[in-house]
Amino acid sequence: MMDYRKIIKPALLLDEVKCRQNISTMAAKAKASGVIFRPHFKTHQSVTIGEWFREEGVSAITVSSVTMAKHFAKNGWKDITIAFPLNLREIEDVRNLSDNIRLNTLVSGFEQVQFVIRKVQFESGCFLKINTGLDRSGIEWDDKEMVIRIVDEINRSRHIRFKGFLTHSGHTYKTSTIKEIIDIYNDTLNKFLSLRSLYPSSDIILSTGDTPSCSLVNNFTGFDEIRPGNFVFYDLTQIQLGSCKSDQVAVALACPVVEKNQKRKEIIIYGGGVHLSKESLKLPDGRIVYGEAAIFNDNEWIFPSERSFVKSLSQEHGIISSSEELINNIKIGGLIGIIPVHSCMTADLMRQYYTFDKSIIADFSSK
Amino acid sequence: MMDYRKIIKPALLLDEVKCRQNISTMAAKAKASGVIFRPHFKTHQSVTIGEWFREEGVSAITVSSVTMAKHFAKNGWKDITIAFPLNLREIEDVRNLSDNIRLNTLVSGFEQVQFVIRKVQFESGCFLKINTGLDRSGIEWDDKEMVIRIVDEINRSRHIRFKGFLTHSGHTYKTSTIKEIIDIYNDTLNKFLSLRSLYPSSDIILSTGDTPSCSLVNNFTGFDEIRPGNFVFYDLTQIQLGSCKSDQVAVALACPVVEKNQKRKEIIIYGGGVHLSKESLKLPDGRIVYGEAAIFNDNEWIFPSERSFVKSLSQEHGIISSSEELINNIKIGGLIGIIPVHSCMTADLMRQYYTFDKSIIADFSSK
Repeated sequence: MMDYRKIIKPALLLDEVKCRQNISTMAAKAKASGVIFRPHFKTHQSVTIGEWFREEGVSAITVSSVTMAKHFAKNGWKDITIAFPLNLREIEDVRNLSDNIRLNTLVSGFEQVQFVIRKVQFESGCFLKINTGLDRSGIEWDDKEMVIRIVDEINRSRHIRFKGFLTHSGHTYKTSTIKEIIDIYNDTLNKFLSLRSLYPSSDIILSTGDTPSCSLVNNFTGFDEIRPGNFVFYDLTQIQLGSCKSDQVAVALACPVVEKNQKRKEIIIYGGGVHLSKESLKLPDGRIVYGEAAIFNDNEWIFPSERSFVKSLSQEHGIISSSEELINNIKIGGLIGIIPVHSCMTADLMRQYYTFDKSIIADFSSK
Repeated sequence: MMDYRKIIKPALLLDEVKCRQNISTMAAKAKASGVIFRPHFKTHQSVTIGEWFREEGVSAITVSSVTMAKHFAKNGWKDITIAFPLNLREIEDVRNLSDNIRLNTLVSGFEQVQFVIRKVQFESGCFLKINTGLDRSGIEWDDKEMVIRIVDEINRSRHIRFKGFLTHSGHTYKTSTIKEIIDIYNDTLNKFLSLRSLYPSSDIILSTGDTPSCSLVNNFTGFDEIRPGNFVFYDLTQIQLGSCKSDQVAVALACPVVEKNQKRKEIIIYGGGVHLSKESLKLPDGRIVYGEAAIFNDNEWIFPSERSFVKSLSQEHGIISSSEELINNIKIGGLIGIIPVHSCMTADLMRQYYTFDKSIIADFSSK
């Protein structure tokens, strides 16, 4: 038991009510659309938060590493997709997982799939990663010849079952209007429908997953599965994209105030790159920022009327370029909340959560 | 015992020979200049690496958090400066430390010093943080009235002993030529000498510490103490600044290769923002990069003749924009080395080191 007001160094606060609301909203939308909801657990990485998903009927999950898959398999999850190009060096761990749960791996290139087929001598489902525009990994969606060649290769394997096509249309993160996000979603859907038409008689799964699309689209008909992750917490990036409202963000880093510089209107906090991560965001006015300041009011954080942002981060300290109001109201030795630019990265750094009901959730995956 | 060639997921490799050479070079320069060498341990945070400093005659150290101070105090360090504005919420821990070791804290503003004097009812040395141009924290070097006011305030305290002036001229990191770094060093020295002249008869300490200056300057006469930290490993940032040569960098993240995209000349590695940090660097040609690729050759990493850089990082993966030579020579399932942009951040994320003699150094400070 730990009252967040008594913390002495940076701690990640989790608003359980908002978090559960984010989960149930997404679960309800997936259900209404008749698609599988296979949330990405890389954002929270926590067994307890995983249970909040289970309470909403979730039984299948996504992770981004074999280590996370082991963590959740050990904690009762029986259906896991590792949405990361299969790492051949971890093949023994993957084999052990396959013995115990329904596991899906990911292939993403012709050369890679040949290695995978040689190495995977055990039952495993397999998705083919498709590049729909992010240009990070996967086969080009319109390289039908290569898609067919790889699927044939997988189908020839005695052990691997081809499950379907998977994409992360993360170029939604590079947009500046909601319309652009919706357009990318529709574009992705059309690309995936053209892939499905290659295999009209089989029950392949079309799986998509970025949080901006999944938050802004209400009907996922056409896809078979969604895999958003970040929505469980949301963050400053999602606020700016328009994929959430600021009162949906479920995490804030509570930071001790260690110094104030009235002349420069700057608040110096204990809370740096090792807590928030160096992930930054460009505001519409061109400023690069590392988080937004909030103030605590009993069991909630609230945004001051005039916004203040973290303008720079060192290893352990952060500097808030502060409004007059904020710097005058905050005391040295007090606490200030920072809404992270990217909650997945901040959660990974902090590895535990303090809730307003004084719990500490410390069942994070190892790295 | 662990041969790095057998790692299955990202691991931080430490070249002990280079690291010890970096330590002894800096120790020798400090000795020749007759200044105290109080290295910053925030970069490595390791007890074992701390011992390598002790072997070079180091007995006083710098850290950036109370937690780190506790870690090293527990491991035999008796003289520690916490070069971070004193966090009032940790005052009990600071008191416990003061009971057992020679501890120096840091004050950095008039309002803060008043809080500190009320709270610190125990023996402690105290440095005043001076802003010499970085504009992060501290009193303006030329605000002599405020400097005198704060020093008077400290001297009136029954418990706190004023030790001297401390700066981190981190604006050396924003330079593009070695001459600019040297100029900043000389400028900092002149500013500090003018502060010393305020207290001609006392034995105050003038303490400076950024790695670029300390690496490029050979004679520290005029200062009394240097506190560099990053030089223990160096990194891509220091190579670019000119403060080290590429063969002085002592850490590289060993990453499994999971995919290759021949068309885009990209290598996809298991090694992302949660391993390297999202710290980036702008190359002279304008590209933003997150690390440089190296290849392993038995017990060393070497740079290919044509340089290749990490062009983007997700949570778990990185993408190397590769030379023809590198992509053709590297195999899926093989290992590639990544020289981090900022070794302090990468070390903090990885929290342990693999050495070429198969040791694992896992005595990192907690956060």
